[in-house]
Amino acid sequence: MYQSFIPPKRLLMGPGPTMVHPRVLEAASRQTIGHLDPAFTGLMEETKSLLKYAFQTENSMTMPVSAPGSAGMEMCFANLVEPGDTAIVCINGVFGDRMKENVERSGGHAIVVEDSWGKPVSIDKVKQALEQHPETKLVAFVHAETSTGALSDAKALTELAHQHHALVIVDAVTSLAGVPLMVDEWQLDAVYSGSQKCLSGMPGLSPVTFGENALDKIRARGTRVQSWFLDLNLVMGYWSSDGGRSYHHTAPVNAIYSLHEALLMLHEEGIENSWARHRENHLLLVEGLEAMGLEMLVPAASQLPQLNAVKIPDGVDDVAVRNRLLQDFDLEIGAGLGELAGKVWRIGLMGESSRPENVEFCLSALRQVIDGGSITAAA
Amino acid sequence: MYQSFIPPKRLLMGPGPTMVHPRVLEAASRQTIGHLDPAFTGLMEETKSLLKYAFQTENSMTMPVSAPGSAGMEMCFANLVEPGDTAIVCINGVFGDRMKENVERSGGHAIVVEDSWGKPVSIDKVKQALEQHPETKLVAFVHAETSTGALSDAKALTELAHQHHALVIVDAVTSLAGVPLMVDEWQLDAVYSGSQKCLSGMPGLSPVTFGENALDKIRARGTRVQSWFLDLNLVMGYWSSDGGRSYHHTAPVNAIYSLHEALLMLHEEGIENSWARHRENHLLLVEGLEAMGLEMLVPAASQLPQLNAVKIPDGVDDVAVRNRLLQDFDLEIGAGLGELAGKVWRIGLMGESSRPENVEFCLSALRQVIDGGSITAAA
Repeated sequence: MYQSFIPPKRLLMGPGPTMVHPRVLEAASRQTIGHLDPAFTGLMEETKSLLKYAFQTENSMTMPVSAPGSAGMEMCFANLVEPGDTAIVCINGVFGDRMKENVERSGGHAIVVEDSWGKPVSIDKVKQALEQHPETKLVAFVHAETSTGALSDAKALTELAHQHHALVIVDAVTSLAGVPLMVDEWQLDAVYSGSQKCLSGMPGLSPVTFGENALDKIRARGTRVQSWFLDLNLVMGYWSSDGGRSYHHTAPVNAIYSLHEALLMLHEEGIENSWARHRENHLLLVEGLEAMGLEMLVPAASQLPQLNAVKIPDGVDDVAVRNRLLQDFDLEIGAGLGELAGKVWRIGLMGESSRPENVEFCLSALRQVIDGGSITAAA
Repeated sequence: MYQSFIPPKRLLMGPGPTMVHPRVLEAASRQTIGHLDPAFTGLMEETKSLLKYAFQTENSMTMPVSAPGSAGMEMCFANLVEPGDTAIVCINGVFGDRMKENVERSGGHAIVVEDSWGKPVSIDKVKQALEQHPETKLVAFVHAETSTGALSDAKALTELAHQHHALVIVDAVTSLAGVPLMVDEWQLDAVYSGSQKCLSGMPGLSPVTFGENALDKIRARGTRVQSWFLDLNLVMGYWSSDGGRSYHHTAPVNAIYSLHEALLMLHEEGIENSWARHRENHLLLVEGLEAMGLEMLVPAASQLPQLNAVKIPDGVDDVAVRNRLLQDFDLEIGAGLGELAGKVWRIGLMGESSRPENVEFCLSALRQVIDGGSITAAA
């Protein structure tokens, strides 16, 4: 009745998960060792060090949370928002909404700055909000919106927040390793990302990094963090390199083998080369899509190279196209989310998926499916 | 400078992680596919079905949380405890303390029933506490205390709680698949476990199951669950088999391949056979330890087969023994935690680690190290 699961061979060009390199997959299958074994704690140190490289930071509080990106997000908000705190939340897609939820569930008061889906976060609107709400303690925004493909100006938003004595929380789930993300140079206070997307690790972990000002705010808390699992002080007791490690939870040992290997591959490639590769394959894709008469959702100036939202032409059936791509070409591309459902496809060129041969294959498959003629929408 | 991490070969006989079968490791290394791919959603259904077998339940709300056991614990408390609720928390080891933390961080009021470390939870004390606190909504206890090796009577505690109109939250991290755990027959309301320990999956996921009465309490909440990541309603929107799955977070796809394989192996062995195997290897270990003149911490009547706390003989240096076992024999056994630190070793015979050849090897290594004479404590 039950059998081992052998996954179909897919080419993953959606919003994630993305392709995982065989080296990274193989690393996960190495024999599990104890999470307090000296060999493992050595690996933890090296993983932190490689994560600092990926984040371009010297923050000592840099580590992978043992759960997906949404838990990394929650770690940032649960630790940095105290009941009654005001936080400006920038919403220009799905993940901004989720940040608002996090502020509110942490007992904070969320001031929403909205931009339409596909637009970057407006610096002017954030400036206005900060002026209207001088009590603001935090500004939260998504660096690279996975739901739309828009890149926001993390450096400018952070400068602005700091001028108003607010800290920033930055969602870098899709930006890390795909576009420049300079945690120290831009003075980002708290940043969370994921092990997947442009890192192309196995899905399931969430790298985070916290700067000194964020840590000061956490140290000054008058109330306990509401989550035990995500309490930064407790988690760092285990990940800290000073003195004895205190047991918090059993680390996802094999997932960390795998993350280490993905970070090692990024280090071997060089992060600047990774950014350039993402950019080049993106240009190749856009050229091909435009040659087919398709139009991008986001203007070029704020278009992410790694996540490409392309408008579905009138009369073409969204679901039928994606089903044909999956069934006939084993190719996964992403659907639109929320208000963009049925209006765009999201083509991911992240990490291992960002290869010129994948771009060519995707363009060719899309051309065949759309030109096939059988997938126009029912009138 | 950086290199791929090749773990040392270890025999894991501590409190976890335990040995992982090559089939389970290999499953994790299969190519990642999309978390909304129809092939993956089929795997999710099968994983839920195999988890129901492991938990011996028909609860439809049975799934793996995408994070370690402490997150499964937090999911139970964050969803079931509302601010102001009274919960009786039974503490007879480390993990009871953590449950108390969870009650309090969820805004509840914890009434502690304490038993000394190594003892099972006292039914009489819980009865008294329920009588003294008729407002009690929940009783929380650890079925199998990993820190001491004591088994508590989950069936009797649950009957008692139900007589007083309280629900139970049961920590089954170490009990699942190692000793009988009958979720439906014993009418357990909310149970969390881990992917590791006696299941011998890769560490990092937390199987949970919720009965109808627990779901009714959650549905009747007047306040929002404080965690977005662990909000049961949102998580079930993704894991539910009725209708469309709504996106919550990217599932840890490869970790679920691996959990599925571990559950499949349990199904192939048969859960009763797994319980019997754990029991037999435990008896073999105790026989050998007692022949060496060592003494168990927990009386036989409440001794877990899978976690064996053995008293460190007077004059023997705890740390030196464990270091020698690790360095000379590549054998990991566990240290005592909390008030048992330095007083006991914890020998795990869980899942794949529970093999007669491992018992023999461990006994032989311990004999050599203790008889070696160089590891007596400094006077």
